Amino acid sequence: MGIQADSVRVPSPGRKRKFSFLSVNLRTSGRKTAFGAVLAAACIFLSSAAALAEPPAWTQIHPGVWKASAGRPERITLLGAAGGTAETDALASLPRAEFPLPAGEIDVRSADGKTFLRFPLARGERIFGLGLSFQNVDQRGRILTLRVDHYGGSDNGRTHAPVPFYVSSRGYGILVDAARYITVYAGTGVRREAKDPPVLRDRNTDKAWEAQPYSDAVEVLVPAGGADVYVFGGPTPLNAVQRYNLMSGGGCLPPKWGLGFTQRVPTLYSAEDILKEADEFEKRGFPLDFIGAEPGWQSMAYPCTLEWDKGRFPDPAGFVSALGGRGVRTNLWLNPYIAPGSALFPKLKGLAGSHTVWNGIVPDLLLDKAVRAFQEHFLKEHIDLGVGGYKIDEVDGFDSWLWPDTTTFPSGASAEQMRQVYGLLLQRYTAGWFKEKDRRTYGLVRGTNAWAAPLPYVIYNDSYSHREFITALVNSSFLGVLWTPEVRASKTAEEWVRRMQSVCFSPMAMINAWADGTKPWSFPEVENAVRDAAGLRMRLLPYLYTAFARYRFEGIPPFRAMSLIEGFDAWAASAGVPGALRDQYLMGDSLLVAPMFAGQAVRKVVLPPGDWFDFYSGDPVGGGQTIEVAPGLDRIPLFVRDGGIIPLVPFRRHAPAAGETLPLEVRHYGRASGRFDLYDDDGTTFGFERGRRSWTALIVDRDAAGNLRASMAAPAPGKPFGYARDAAWRFMTRPPHPEP
Amino acid sequence: MGIQADSVRVPSPGRKRKFSFLSVNLRTSGRKTAFGAVLAAACIFLSSAAALAEPPAWTQIHPGVWKASAGRPERITLLGAAGGTAETDALASLPRAEFPLPAGEIDVRSADGKTFLRFPLARGERIFGLGLSFQNVDQRGRILTLRVDHYGGSDNGRTHAPVPFYVSSRGYGILVDAARYITVYAGTGVRREAKDPPVLRDRNTDKAWEAQPYSDAVEVLVPAGGADVYVFGGPTPLNAVQRYNLMSGGGCLPPKWGLGFTQRVPTLYSAEDILKEADEFEKRGFPLDFIGAEPGWQSMAYPCTLEWDKGRFPDPAGFVSALGGRGVRTNLWLNPYIAPGSALFPKLKGLAGSHTVWNGIVPDLLLDKAVRAFQEHFLKEHIDLGVGGYKIDEVDGFDSWLWPDTTTFPSGASAEQMRQVYGLLLQRYTAGWFKEKDRRTYGLVRGTNAWAAPLPYVIYNDSYSHREFITALVNSSFLGVLWTPEVRASKTAEEWVRRMQSVCFSPMAMINAWADGTKPWSFPEVENAVRDAAGLRMRLLPYLYTAFARYRFEGIPPFRAMSLIEGFDAWAASAGVPGALRDQYLMGDSLLVAPMFAGQAVRKVVLPPGDWFDFYSGDPVGGGQTIEVAPGLDRIPLFVRDGGIIPLVPFRRHAPAAGETLPLEVRHYGRASGRFDLYDDDGTTFGFERGRRSWTALIVDRDAAGNLRASMAAPAPGKPFGYARDAAWRFMTRPPHPEP
Repeated sequence: MGIQADSVRVPSPGRKRKFSFLSVNLRTSGRKTAFGAVLAAACIFLSSAAALAEPPAWTQIHPGVWKASAGRPERITLLGAAGGTAETDALASLPRAEFPLPAGEIDVRSADGKTFLRFPLARGERIFGLGLSFQNVDQRGRILTLRVDHYGGSDNGRTHAPVPFYVSSRGYGILVDAARYITVYAGTGVRREAKDPPVLRDRNTDKAWEAQPYSDAVEVLVPAGGADVYVFGGPTPLNAVQRYNLMSGGGCLPPKWGLGFTQRVPTLYSAEDILKEADEFEKRGFPLDFIGAEPGWQSMAYPCTLEWDKGRFPDPAGFVSALGGRGVRTNLWLNPYIAPGSALFPKLKGLAGSHTVWNGIVPDLLLDKAVRAFQEHFLKEHIDLGVGGYKIDEVDGFDSWLWPDTTTFPSGASAEQMRQVYGLLLQRYTAGWFKEKDRRTYGLVRGTNAWAAPLPYVIYNDSYSHREFITALVNSSFLGVLWTPEVRASKTAEEWVRRMQSVCFSPMAMINAWADGTKPWSFPEVENAVRDAAGLRMRLLPYLYTAFARYRFEGIPPFRAMSLIEGFDAWAASAGVPGALRDQYLMGDSLLVAPMFAGQAVRKVVLPPGDWFDFYSGDPVGGGQTIEVAPGLDRIPLFVRDGGIIPLVPFRRHAPAAGETLPLEVRHYGRASGRFDLYDDDGTTFGFERGRRSWTALIVDRDAAGNLRASMAAPAPGKPFGYARDAAWRFMTRPPHPEP
Repeated sequence: MGIQADSVRVPSPGRKRKFSFLSVNLRTSGRKTAFGAVLAAACIFLSSAAALAEPPAWTQIHPGVWKASAGRPERITLLGAAGGTAETDALASLPRAEFPLPAGEIDVRSADGKTFLRFPLARGERIFGLGLSFQNVDQRGRILTLRVDHYGGSDNGRTHAPVPFYVSSRGYGILVDAARYITVYAGTGVRREAKDPPVLRDRNTDKAWEAQPYSDAVEVLVPAGGADVYVFGGPTPLNAVQRYNLMSGGGCLPPKWGLGFTQRVPTLYSAEDILKEADEFEKRGFPLDFIGAEPGWQSMAYPCTLEWDKGRFPDPAGFVSALGGRGVRTNLWLNPYIAPGSALFPKLKGLAGSHTVWNGIVPDLLLDKAVRAFQEHFLKEHIDLGVGGYKIDEVDGFDSWLWPDTTTFPSGASAEQMRQVYGLLLQRYTAGWFKEKDRRTYGLVRGTNAWAAPLPYVIYNDSYSHREFITALVNSSFLGVLWTPEVRASKTAEEWVRRMQSVCFSPMAMINAWADGTKPWSFPEVENAVRDAAGLRMRLLPYLYTAFARYRFEGIPPFRAMSLIEGFDAWAASAGVPGALRDQYLMGDSLLVAPMFAGQAVRKVVLPPGDWFDFYSGDPVGGGQTIEVAPGLDRIPLFVRDGGIIPLVPFRRHAPAAGETLPLEVRHYGRASGRFDLYDDDGTTFGFERGRRSWTALIVDRDAAGNLRASMAAPAPGKPFGYARDAAWRFMTRPPHPEP
């Protein structure tokens, strides 16, 4: 169905664009009055014109990525705010893709000062993405007004990452880039001229009558004069996601310590208290790589000074250094609304919005001068002291907290635009300041948007439903964002261990239970189970770090929806199994994670086609079917695909430092041959971008006798590789396979 | 604080409007290219300009009503859609009002293609209205995006009547008229330059820190180039509501039969079934004035033919007439989305929106030709047959049912504008077609908007929370709309009687329990209590009809929030009593209704200052205080103010017909003198607008000896007056007061 051309222009079925002068350059008019009269007339005419159709002109800007302008795109875009640059080589190495839709069925119109887009939708097609949803994975049939906001309990588009990107089960993606509250009708509206119209039925007498008749289109309303539109080819849904991630620069590669454990501490903890907390983790033998200080590290918060409280932190540099001496990085909470008492205030007060947030000014981060003031302050006060990262809070919502949409900003950006990009800007700039110091950071953010894959931040929120947290983790994989199902207080030991198990299989193993003081060891009856899960995460770091490296270089999300497995939803539909699963996912290529929830003794797991094996025992569990598991409290169900290779290191409390050499255990599951390219670098700098990285093949294949044999390629000479060369291989699946 | 001038122009504190040419008349430019260039440049400049302040120029258009244009108001307005004309004489007879706000503190700006308005807000000021809310009465501190929609469980502005009008407890009202999704920040946003800024606090250490700092303004975002703005003076909140209602033509005066009982019947009921239903009500002696046929009266529904089903209704005229012969009017359910099989379809298919609703086309009711097609059809098929009214369903929402906002209409109206006015248009036109026949109608509607007071329709929905239904009834009084807390199925006899009691003290006594077949007499244990409540409503018709006449002629809502009692909220605040009450209200001037809810044996009632008396016994119950009542199942708590006069007629099953003369019982409560001007007319025609109406004074005053005495003025000669001249007076409050 595709069209093989680098530039595709297909006349839209609607009316031709009438106002070609909209894009001509400025020439001054003779008389001012005439100018005014002409403008007034034309504006009135434009605003009353019903619908100006404008055929989209697609240009292939990268292999398998097409771009078109709908209407007149605005100056402020999500791509511009995120600031990434495409990984062109990686894009070029993806499978060839053709333009994935019948271009003539894509319609763009301008009307009422807005831009309407329409994309065709096929029967059985599923739609994923469209903002970080917490309850639904398949968005078809939903209406979402995508707006940076706190998730308020229903999937209506108000969310921490309202990314206007969708991935189709048919293997393509579409992104509408406008820093606006975009509404997507994901297969709900029915046109009179629909190509595939619904059946007419009489509700009085026909039981098959439907409240929502069949719709053959995705319609998008951009409340602005235009938008950039991107189409990402497949052929698989994962390929489309890869192209989207690579367009923005590829996924972030956290420092190794970012993948260890993090604990957050009570807001009024002093430097001394925090050091004691680190000591207690050490005493208990529990892993810990960074600690987050909550608002009280500052001299005032809500609004924030972004300055250390001299009472609680008399020697900030000494504190950060002392914590570092314990192998623990410092993370600082902030929100960006500046208190009058801060040294930043006089520098920013002329560069802020018209409205305040909690009495703090809102710096206009679209002004270079405001960014530079922030930069100078952040470097001097935090980064140069050794602080490892930030938790950027309250850049999402609620409406009654943030600046209203009537706010004006000195840069000329509207309140709506600023809302849609503020989290992106803060992530981009703070990450950039670390990068200038050749240090990687990894932090938390509560509001973000499209093209965020390279930004080393993980989303979180306060809603605290374990099931919804897992659904968010599933959905994050469609959107170029990361999500942590953080652990706070739990009512029962069972809940605690189930949540701890989940967070160990997520982008950030965060314990955030400071409000009630729960510690990993607080529930004695599950303490060992919690330690097992935490230990397993630490042992899996080589596997996980490699998954992130593939995010960085290939755009493959490290945590992944089942629907990103090639053909999964089609198989599920044909097998009568539910697709678009919200409660299980992949970590890396080979590990299927099926979290247990409190109150649940047994759960169903859908195993994709192929043979799958229990991670712990190596036993076969089936494939292409739904199984039930009853793992007891001490384990989270984990399954490995046939031929899966999982590298592990011995348990450790901290992520490895540069220069360390760790013993390697390599597990093979199932009966198929397999290969795992183990990634490594120094773990903390951007040397990897300058070639200081290694990929080392771990291979299981069959010899002439048909026996499995394992081998490890020689590490590239002169490249960082922090593992011993004599890996301990384990063939997990019995009957035994001969070891090499 | 007011400014005494018919036209007030105060420079706004913001920047001066720079583009005076925005309002000049069209002159054509010389060359097309120059025209285009100039336009492009100016449009770009306009769209990027931060904020153009434009001082509002207030013109007093009626006594106590000021209007200004903010930006460039659009062609389609709510006032234009509602179509009313001001009751200028009645407006002139209200108490003198000065411009109620410091005009210099009202700010209007244009930015980002939108219009921002700001109005000052004082400490302690309460804000009422802003759409039909179901949970809150005081809207201060809320953010509402006012959009015609089904109420979805939270008061966020999506509601059946998203009226952009608010009434201040300080005695004025403000209406922003744009057929757009207007967002109101009702005291949430805080400007850096706030006149009354909040206190700066450190959340780390200050327990008094507030998540939502004090805001001194209401801010309004109109997502369009302009809006008409109206300011309504007081001096009381009720006066402001009166001015708003009178500006649109005054409240509706239903036919007398509209105030009797109505029953709705199962969707597939035939003509014969419905006649039997009417007969059963007669046999049971239960009042009934009109019956509503649900979708099945049509040959197809969802989408609708708006034509009778020939099987279930072989002789529509005969059916309507037979029902009329039983004293019962016919009401017809509809939604306006036209089925391909309807005779209307070929006439409307070129006059409809681009999208369908349930496979039906959406007639563009801003096109005269579409309205005429409807008119011809409605007259011929329903009105000329004697049908009494309509239930206009699904002109509200949900988004996934109605046309998407990407829909275009041939009139050039946007989907958003059409959504905001569609219910208004249908009410206005259908009511007008009845009026052409000199017949009053009274029906139901699920989507409406501002200026709807004259439209003889009552709002309803499916949410079915008894408490929320009462809150909606309270809030309706601020908005120029009517609301019925209709009765459907009930789980228990208690719930049934409590709901029945409430609906008897509402604008429409509707039983809508057809889905499960519950009848008024279905719960034997409360049958008598239900009959008592129903009987009381029928007995109170003279009182209620007069309350509606005051709605019509004076703009005073017949059902009224406690906050519309002069000084009520100020008294409540000073007395430490909750104000902005959501569970009690006035019917007419004198009757305080305090509904009971299932599960509630005792309830609190806040009695405003003054003496109050039990309606049933006449006993004093207190005043200026909160009391507790435990009325048992057989009564709804009703209280009468001191000096209150309540006229009643004997129980009857139907509202009186023109020419009937009914005995009158007149009750007096308390110890104060009082006066009630009893209204009457023929009850069904618009003769009352041509002078065929009467007001007859019922007076209780004190004679020289200090004794109360009653008198009834002579009815105006030659005017309709359907009551016997020898009223039976009852002084309800003991110790006895001498009768005249």
